Amino acid sequence: MAVESSKNHAEGLRLWRNARLATMAENSAGLGIVEHGALAARDGRIIYAGPQSEMPSAFAQGEIIDCEGRWITPGLIDCHTHLIHAGNRANEFEMRLAGATYEEVARAGGGIVSSVKFLRAASEGDLVAQTLPRLDALIAEGVTTVEVKSGYGLDLENEKKSLRAARQLGNERPVTVRTTCLAAHALPPEAKGDKDAFIDLVAKMILPGVVEEGLADAVDGFCEGIAFSPEQMARVFDVAQAAGLPVKLHADQLSNLHGAELAARYGALSADHLEYTDEAGAVAMAKAGTVATILPGAYYFIRETKKPPIGLFRQHGVRMAVATDNNPGTSPLTSLLLTMNMAATLFGMTVDECLAGVTREAARALGLLGETGTLVSGKSADLAIWDIERPAELVYRMGFNPLHARIWRGQ
Amino acid sequence: MAVESSKNHAEGLRLWRNARLATMAENSAGLGIVEHGALAARDGRIIYAGPQSEMPSAFAQGEIIDCEGRWITPGLIDCHTHLIHAGNRANEFEMRLAGATYEEVARAGGGIVSSVKFLRAASEGDLVAQTLPRLDALIAEGVTTVEVKSGYGLDLENEKKSLRAARQLGNERPVTVRTTCLAAHALPPEAKGDKDAFIDLVAKMILPGVVEEGLADAVDGFCEGIAFSPEQMARVFDVAQAAGLPVKLHADQLSNLHGAELAARYGALSADHLEYTDEAGAVAMAKAGTVATILPGAYYFIRETKKPPIGLFRQHGVRMAVATDNNPGTSPLTSLLLTMNMAATLFGMTVDECLAGVTREAARALGLLGETGTLVSGKSADLAIWDIERPAELVYRMGFNPLHARIWRGQ
Ligand SMILES: [Zn+2]
Ligand SMILES: [Zn+2]
Repeated sequence: MAVESSKNHAEGLRLWRNARLATMAENSAGLGIVEHGALAARDGRIIYAGPQSEMPSAFAQGEIIDCEGRWITPGLIDCHTHLIHAGNRANEFEMRLAGATYEEVARAGGGIVSSVKFLRAASEGDLVAQTLPRLDALIAEGVTTVEVKSGYGLDLENEKKSLRAARQLGNERPVTVRTTCLAAHALPPEAKGDKDAFIDLVAKMILPGVVEEGLADAVDGFCEGIAFSPEQMARVFDVAQAAGLPVKLHADQLSNLHGAELAARYGALSADHLEYTDEAGAVAMAKAGTVATILPGAYYFIRETKKPPIGLFRQHGVRMAVATDNNPGTSPLTSLLLTMNMAATLFGMTVDECLAGVTREAARALGLLGETGTLVSGKSADLAIWDIERPAELVYRMGFNPLHARIWRGQ
Repeated sequence: MAVESSKNHAEGLRLWRNARLATMAENSAGLGIVEHGALAARDGRIIYAGPQSEMPSAFAQGEIIDCEGRWITPGLIDCHTHLIHAGNRANEFEMRLAGATYEEVARAGGGIVSSVKFLRAASEGDLVAQTLPRLDALIAEGVTTVEVKSGYGLDLENEKKSLRAARQLGNERPVTVRTTCLAAHALPPEAKGDKDAFIDLVAKMILPGVVEEGLADAVDGFCEGIAFSPEQMARVFDVAQAAGLPVKLHADQLSNLHGAELAARYGALSADHLEYTDEAGAVAMAKAGTVATILPGAYYFIRETKKPPIGLFRQHGVRMAVATDNNPGTSPLTSLLLTMNMAATLFGMTVDECLAGVTREAARALGLLGETGTLVSGKSADLAIWDIERPAELVYRMGFNPLHARIWRGQ
């Protein structure tokens, strides 16, 4: 890619020319393709994305980058991760393959409690250091925005530590980080099985403390038999709403507790997983504008066989995002490209749905659609430039990274 | 990793110290682990691999590399690929996800014939240039030996061109390439449906021509209803044997034609795929010492549901290799790490089986066990050095590459 550095080009103006654009713009057909395209940005914001022939000539005053026919998509967005965690659970994976039962793994100290123990033992700096290689793997594939949840701290100090570490990622790397407080993720050992008492702690102490420090952009929970009931989640959501924070929900992953409807009732940005969601759930989500975040990595890793109802989501007009769900227990996955392949191969999502799922719809699931996720004037110039002949290659290949360049906020 | 460059170190002598070794040596338990290990090489050959405390002091005269506790495994081996191909089939993938039938894809020019058309149109230089990014993806994960098949040429000139391009890969990159003539892969359009006539061409013209130029290290075929019968494959194998070349077979992938037994009867290095192999096939392979090459990428990509009989292979002592099967139609996969995860997640292979499958057993499947595949004195110093805490991480993670350094023939 040749950069023609004009001697006296206009300050802060950059132009990518000779490109093929997949703008992903709303209300355009398919991927919003512009075959002979150009994109201009000033001070980190897109000021033009469209046919090169129609571009105002003033935009050619800036720094000019010849894309030599390469494709430009919006920078990718991973809208559901537990990227901040300590240690890994490779030992459990190994034990289980060697025939150990869940009980044997638990007796050996495995399961989510091991992640809680590791996280509590780690300093904020440790957490950042352990997470950066995972973040770098995402960035290497063109990710410009990533959501990061807490949820292994499970007390005020450790939830705050997790969220501070998540925010710190955005200082360490050129990437937009959105933080989500997932205190209602699991029951910590000290709760001794009393879920209501723990939810009380979340509602009265953990969430208010996190909110007070401004550490969370959203609030999430895990609504499931092995986690918290819809009633318990509603208590948490009431506190979030009172604090003015949008909510999300791990819903209907292992059984149908009508988590999708609960999320819709609270106008959630997204409901996530959704393997067991029924038609009423899909209808409620459509009405509420709640995005369905599809997480094929966890489905694959835990050998789930029930697929999320993609057909119902299509039929009722529920928007679908696609994300890694990166976490040490059920989805040690750090490739959003591979995640798209899984969504297509395992769930039959189309190429267009997969690409929208990691760009426009992922932005929507984070409440950031006004800021990023499509190549449209006014938005942040977050771009991924690819060495491919057609966008379908980004979904079709497995374990191959054709990223040519990644641009975050114009740079 | 600190390199202490001794001023007058012994010529050609290199020492990796402060390492944890997974030697994968035969007859050692599990991964052949040496916790406080060292590995010395002279002129590209391993001269010591074992406890650091027991290493002859003379080996410390050379260049010393401090591994700082990192793990060393044998360099990885991808023992089944169709890496040399032209174009890709992302368009078919996209059409099929959008609901097109196989007939519609075929009418649009899809299927293996499209790969044959692309390959025939490409020059040898084009083929090498198109293949290098795929090879580089494998190398970036620690691959030091790769097998490459022909099989999209399907006439003498184009099969020779493919195999010459495959050999050329070994001149372009520091990697050992083994070539396999797979002329009996599919029926070319000009054969007009006459399989016997095409097998005649393979036996009398293509194979002899390839052998004459010394372009193939082994001979392979596709034994399946949609390809060639056991009797047709036997004709090809007879020619291979007369030429002194070992054989391999794509066997029992979509149905049980007793390909495993056919391969065993010819003392094949490996039989590959094997989803439909029965107990008699496993017994025959065990007796013949034929390796079972497990290819989970194709199983995953084509949404096969019948798994290869891993339990029978264990029970009867059949050795198992694991490979990408990289090809544009059914396994566009260029990550051997991800392939291990698939073998574990989809087929329940253990961590030890997966790691042996991409090292020792993959070497065996190529007839190269005397040369590479384990960390044993006398073999080529082909190493992968990893930033991990335990070998299971190499299987557990998805889309993450913890390679620290790759050493091929001591460098
Ligand atoms: Zn999650
Ligand atoms: Zn194959």
